[in-house]
Amino acid sequence: MYPKPIKRLIDAFSKLPGVGSRTATRFALFLLNSPKSRSKELSDAITEVTEKISQCNFCFRSLEKGEELCSICKDNSRNSILSIVERETDLVSLESIKAFKGVYFILGGNISPLKKEDLSNVRIKELKDRIKNPKKYGKDIKEVIIATSPTTEGEATALYLERVLKPLEIKVTKLAKGLPVGGELEYADEETLSSAFKGRN
Amino acid sequence: MYPKPIKRLIDAFSKLPGVGSRTATRFALFLLNSPKSRSKELSDAITEVTEKISQCNFCFRSLEKGEELCSICKDNSRNSILSIVERETDLVSLESIKAFKGVYFILGGNISPLKKEDLSNVRIKELKDRIKNPKKYGKDIKEVIIATSPTTEGEATALYLERVLKPLEIKVTKLAKGLPVGGELEYADEETLSSAFKGRN
Repeated sequence: MYPKPIKRLIDAFSKLPGVGSRTATRFALFLLNSPKSRSKELSDAITEVTEKISQCNFCFRSLEKGEELCSICKDNSRNSILSIVERETDLVSLESIKAFKGVYFILGGNISPLKKEDLSNVRIKELKDRIKNPKKYGKDIKEVIIATSPTTEGEATALYLERVLKPLEIKVTKLAKGLPVGGELEYADEETLSSAFKGRN
Repeated sequence: MYPKPIKRLIDAFSKLPGVGSRTATRFALFLLNSPKSRSKELSDAITEVTEKISQCNFCFRSLEKGEELCSICKDNSRNSILSIVERETDLVSLESIKAFKGVYFILGGNISPLKKEDLSNVRIKELKDRIKNPKKYGKDIKEVIIATSPTTEGEATALYLERVLKPLEIKVTKLAKGLPVGGELEYADEETLSSAFKGRN
């Protein structure tokens, strides 16, 4: 029903996470009916991101090209505890609570329990390298916090990490699981409730 | 927390309809972690749409630049009934039922009942012009179907259209309102139910 250039744009939009063809169509027609400056702003921003962003040499967080270490890894006042997270958004969430004063390592993904052998999207080798070589990276990691999500994939990843980190003889802890603050006990699922029970303190 | 180019991309994405900063961040980081070709595809598609798309001279549907009339308006086998819709997506929905064999006119928006005087985003002048000048446009419109959405804004627009079309002495009908097929009577709201009652046949 739509001319080819619009179809192509709808296709491109529908590749974004959580965007189906209906939403993609809405995005495309919205841009079409907006002033040209809005479309230009978006396409320029996309181009700029792919051209100007690289990754932190230590934690793999995004930063502007030309820099080697991100603001967190550069900060010498931060301590030698390493939080392992799945994605950059998780790092941002943890930073926002302002309670963690250590550094991070972004795995880049998680391990599916169904494809345990597929480690292609997690940076395990890089992680071991950073813990084993304090001099190379200027960071002497004393403790590791596994901060993966309490999902099936996150838990599988955490288990795998525990096994990988064991030979390195370093203290390993995991984020506590339990009732979410503000949530009502009545509505907690069984898994959460039994985690909260086990971890009572 | 994010470098400037990423922030700019998040801002640009959050201007899309229904996209908040969380979704926009997800889109931005997704593109960042995708192969460059995906970002290029999207930014090229956006640029192409703004450069290559114009509007049908009769119904204002999008078409590739260079063409004057869209496939529907060009089709001489289609009859002289004109469906007035708010947006291009509504035209696509109506076409998909394959029951309507006339032509369309896209208003481009609707009239808010709170700002009745604001007609800046509806093509009323253009609509009257097309009905009044059968020779100029090569289409002798015999009947008009007001196919605006049964929302507050759509109904306000329909009322306004009825008033505007009256002096033109042309048959005007509106889409039927009633129970949606497959919906249960029990869950129908009062307005829908009373519309269904009034329009019983």
